[in-house]
Amino acid sequence: MTAHRSPAPDDGVFDVGFAAELDRLFRWRRDVRRFRTDPLADGLLEEIIASAELSPSVGNSQPWRWVQVVSPERRAAIREAFGDANAEALEGYRGDRARVYAGLKLSGLDDAPVHLAVFAHPDPGQGDGLGRRTMPETVEYSVVMAVASLWFAARARGIGVGWVSIIDPARVHAALDVPDDWRLVAYLCLGYPAAASEVPELETVGWQARTDAARRRLTR
Amino acid sequence: MTAHRSPAPDDGVFDVGFAAELDRLFRWRRDVRRFRTDPLADGLLEEIIASAELSPSVGNSQPWRWVQVVSPERRAAIREAFGDANAEALEGYRGDRARVYAGLKLSGLDDAPVHLAVFAHPDPGQGDGLGRRTMPETVEYSVVMAVASLWFAARARGIGVGWVSIIDPARVHAALDVPDDWRLVAYLCLGYPAAASEVPELETVGWQARTDAARRRLTR
Repeated sequence: MTAHRSPAPDDGVFDVGFAAELDRLFRWRRDVRRFRTDPLADGLLEEIIASAELSPSVGNSQPWRWVQVVSPERRAAIREAFGDANAEALEGYRGDRARVYAGLKLSGLDDAPVHLAVFAHPDPGQGDGLGRRTMPETVEYSVVMAVASLWFAARARGIGVGWVSIIDPARVHAALDVPDDWRLVAYLCLGYPAAASEVPELETVGWQARTDAARRRLTR
Repeated sequence: MTAHRSPAPDDGVFDVGFAAELDRLFRWRRDVRRFRTDPLADGLLEEIIASAELSPSVGNSQPWRWVQVVSPERRAAIREAFGDANAEALEGYRGDRARVYAGLKLSGLDDAPVHLAVFAHPDPGQGDGLGRRTMPETVEYSVVMAVASLWFAARARGIGVGWVSIIDPARVHAALDVPDDWRLVAYLCLGYPAAASEVPELETVGWQARTDAARRRLTR
């Protein structure tokens, strides 16, 4: 691939094959919940986070905060918080839906070698407030964009990512002892996928398939 | 690049060169505010949106809604809303900061051939609520992730994207006449960059440089 472009200066041009391969990455960037337990190769997590750090952010404020969770006690507290939230969610479904929900694997917390909690600093001095006066939520959105980059960077290196959203953020906060004003954006599991597929698991089990894109587009 | 992998079935493996090229894409995915006025090549916008549609979403709910803004009257209303918000933001800075802020180019609304407003449907029936009971904000976060995909897909095809956040969402809503309960996530400008750089413009003009990544990492 690199053979097709001149060495320097970098002109920001990408070849057609790259765009096609990027689309393949988009297809493979699914939520992974089944992980092998072996650790990531040395330096790989640092490499993936460094890639995510290249993400743009509102006012160049870089509001993301990466918290790697290694303590068995803290991990157990997170696992319990997920279990409680998942049990409560199950109570909200009836009949077939409840049966299917109960059979879903909705987190890889037990097996994933890396737990990474991602927070937003709600009022980063960095950037001096630029760009977020009318839409302060762009601080959190900037963190989500960095999570997207992390997810792509991981998948391109054979690492699966799962986003655990069935959890009470207040309990994550308490378990991890981070500054009070940080806001949890995502609790992520990372590891080598035990079984990888480019089809969303919710589609495979008949919970929810993707639908026609045309209904999501308007012209004004 | 594709020559290095077997044709079928797709194993989800990406070669080392791809990860390096992806990092180059990360560097080049900067906010673009200086656009050429010529339209996107035929079918390119559709291709980019189709790539973004591959994004994962909470409960596979696909809550994103793409609204392409073509009407000159609606565009003028958006331009005016940005002008007002930007003038108000300028009033919040003093001295050197005010001088630098006044000289910043913070939107490409006048020149960009494509305006794309991206909304979240706050309560998509699709997905039956799965995964968003304790963190309902994951609906909007799913839309942000799709915006990230769109940004990457665009940049890989030579198209720049600029996110206009200095705007009152209520005025965007009124100007575009979309359902009341939709929530504006991003107002985007797309087009061929007039001048592209991999250095954030806020860094170039001395507003805010990127800072050391180590301060954004913790272990727990």
